[in-house]
Amino acid sequence: MSLLNETLEKIQPLNEEIMKKSKVRVDDLLKPVGSLGVLEEIAVQLSGISDEMFPDVSKKAMLVFCGDHGVFEEGVAAAPQEVTDLMAQMVVAGKSGVAVLCKQAGADVFVCDVGMISEIDPKSKILDKKIRKGTSNMRKGPAMTRDEAIASLEAGIDVAGRAIKNGYNILGTGEVGISNTTPSAAIFSAFSGVDPGELVGAGANLSEEKMVNKAQVIRDAITLNKPDKNDAIDVLAKVGGFEIGAMAGAMLAGASYKVPVLIDGFISTAAAAIAIALKPEVKGYLICSHASAERGAAFGSEFIGAKPFLNMGMRLGEGSGAAIAFNIVEAALYMNREMATYSDVGLGVV
Amino acid sequence: MSLLNETLEKIQPLNEEIMKKSKVRVDDLLKPVGSLGVLEEIAVQLSGISDEMFPDVSKKAMLVFCGDHGVFEEGVAAAPQEVTDLMAQMVVAGKSGVAVLCKQAGADVFVCDVGMISEIDPKSKILDKKIRKGTSNMRKGPAMTRDEAIASLEAGIDVAGRAIKNGYNILGTGEVGISNTTPSAAIFSAFSGVDPGELVGAGANLSEEKMVNKAQVIRDAITLNKPDKNDAIDVLAKVGGFEIGAMAGAMLAGASYKVPVLIDGFISTAAAAIAIALKPEVKGYLICSHASAERGAAFGSEFIGAKPFLNMGMRLGEGSGAAIAFNIVEAALYMNREMATYSDVGLGVV
Repeated sequence: MSLLNETLEKIQPLNEEIMKKSKVRVDDLLKPVGSLGVLEEIAVQLSGISDEMFPDVSKKAMLVFCGDHGVFEEGVAAAPQEVTDLMAQMVVAGKSGVAVLCKQAGADVFVCDVGMISEIDPKSKILDKKIRKGTSNMRKGPAMTRDEAIASLEAGIDVAGRAIKNGYNILGTGEVGISNTTPSAAIFSAFSGVDPGELVGAGANLSEEKMVNKAQVIRDAITLNKPDKNDAIDVLAKVGGFEIGAMAGAMLAGASYKVPVLIDGFISTAAAAIAIALKPEVKGYLICSHASAERGAAFGSEFIGAKPFLNMGMRLGEGSGAAIAFNIVEAALYMNREMATYSDVGLGVV
Repeated sequence: MSLLNETLEKIQPLNEEIMKKSKVRVDDLLKPVGSLGVLEEIAVQLSGISDEMFPDVSKKAMLVFCGDHGVFEEGVAAAPQEVTDLMAQMVVAGKSGVAVLCKQAGADVFVCDVGMISEIDPKSKILDKKIRKGTSNMRKGPAMTRDEAIASLEAGIDVAGRAIKNGYNILGTGEVGISNTTPSAAIFSAFSGVDPGELVGAGANLSEEKMVNKAQVIRDAITLNKPDKNDAIDVLAKVGGFEIGAMAGAMLAGASYKVPVLIDGFISTAAAAIAIALKPEVKGYLICSHASAERGAAFGSEFIGAKPFLNMGMRLGEGSGAAIAFNIVEAALYMNREMATYSDVGLGVV
């Protein structure tokens, strides 16, 4: 059986029984019932994910997948395409946004090339899972073949699976890929039927005029390729990206190993939409972090039914929002594990 | 000169010159301009607070001030008054919400009694700055005398000042005090003229019916005591609380020593309103953390012009939301200090 199918088969619904027990404990914690809001929800979710009341989430890995996009040539990005390679180098060097935020958060960062146009120095710390040097231009045909889409998912499954086998017990999903808000908007448009004009944003500070073009490029790509909204691999292949497939794969792997996976912003949410379409049960294993300021992000979060709890006006990508959320997830665990309960002090619940 | 006046005189506006330099650097960091949102704002603010480009904010202190309230006897609280003492004990024991969240965040917690009705065991780790055993019932007269209000401010100045002298370089403000959402709502009503009915909330899960009474109690207290909205000490004395005065004092001390102070939720925001009314320049030294789910909190944040960035649905108090924000503030510093710049890599800013 293929790695993808094996992974999909392994994914189970959250453990409802332990979630009930965890909820009883959370409500007994010495605080007004419900007064720790999202922390309470996350604590219960963590129990359901892990089959444990108090799962360790202290060993944090941020997986940053990197790829390029043929659709870049349609003028959909504000930065030159070489910046993908530059930023991937900056992440491994510990000098990019996500790298320094992960350093503060105590998370290790792993960078994986799944389709950059540049050659990676074999001595580099960038993991080589390159599928092809950039996707094809979706305005002229499918971004990738179906086999390549599956390979991108499996690259993510492999990298995430190895991280988990090495002891990481919570994953963040990040990406680097100039113009990858375009395939992300295309994925949401393909799944939802919403016009791309509603979903495209400034990405890395694209002008208003170029955003109009960006929306038309996506419209054309969808008209030409006719992605089947009932076939997530078809959507990924026709209008997606290698790093988006890999992020979706990492989410599937997390779910299959009962490890929580943090969603970052718009692109990561598009990957989550792919993963959830492949296996709806994966949703329970995902924790949404921040409300990205990228236009379309709010639609994306609502589309997958996620409620971001960080309202930081961030839109950098790379996994930067998820990086900040690592410690909030761990805070939820501390709450559940270490607070006194009403039972401990012999009082009735307020 | 009194400690209060000395502190007020020491408070300077933020250092605009270094903020300009910090902003230039933040815009040169290798990311689309503006794409790290609130982190960028905080980084610039930290520079302006400290007179340094990259101030250390790694030594984190949460100051939890505890007090009781005469207005409790009007039936404005869901929990019995003994819970103030119990929770203060739980905070020092490391078993309350704020205590475990601070443990996760790497922050030390200091608990200070400024007016609990209980006697504090001299061997306890609770700092004794008791002004009186509980305020008076504001529905029957002023909650405290003007001298007591000043004493509460100075208690906070003293405790915060000592923490800073001991090396803490960022402070959080928390509180324990059954029924203290009532004086908090009263403070905002006194300052703004908004009817208490718009400002009172469930606190520790008060019923809808009792909230109607709670609003009427505040209306009566304001009608009786006529707090002067142009005299913050008068407002604090007539309808405030000892722990609220102490939190305001801690904010003033932070500003006077050029150290950032985190605002928590509704009660902490009411304290911020007092501090800002005493010295408008203090506002620049305050960092708002979370949008409390307590009704009235959104009004409070808007009243002081603060934009909370954590949307966690939390309403526990104690400093719990500020605890979660410590690492986000430090993340802003890491961003500014450790990211590569466009200048470093010889590229133009995007």
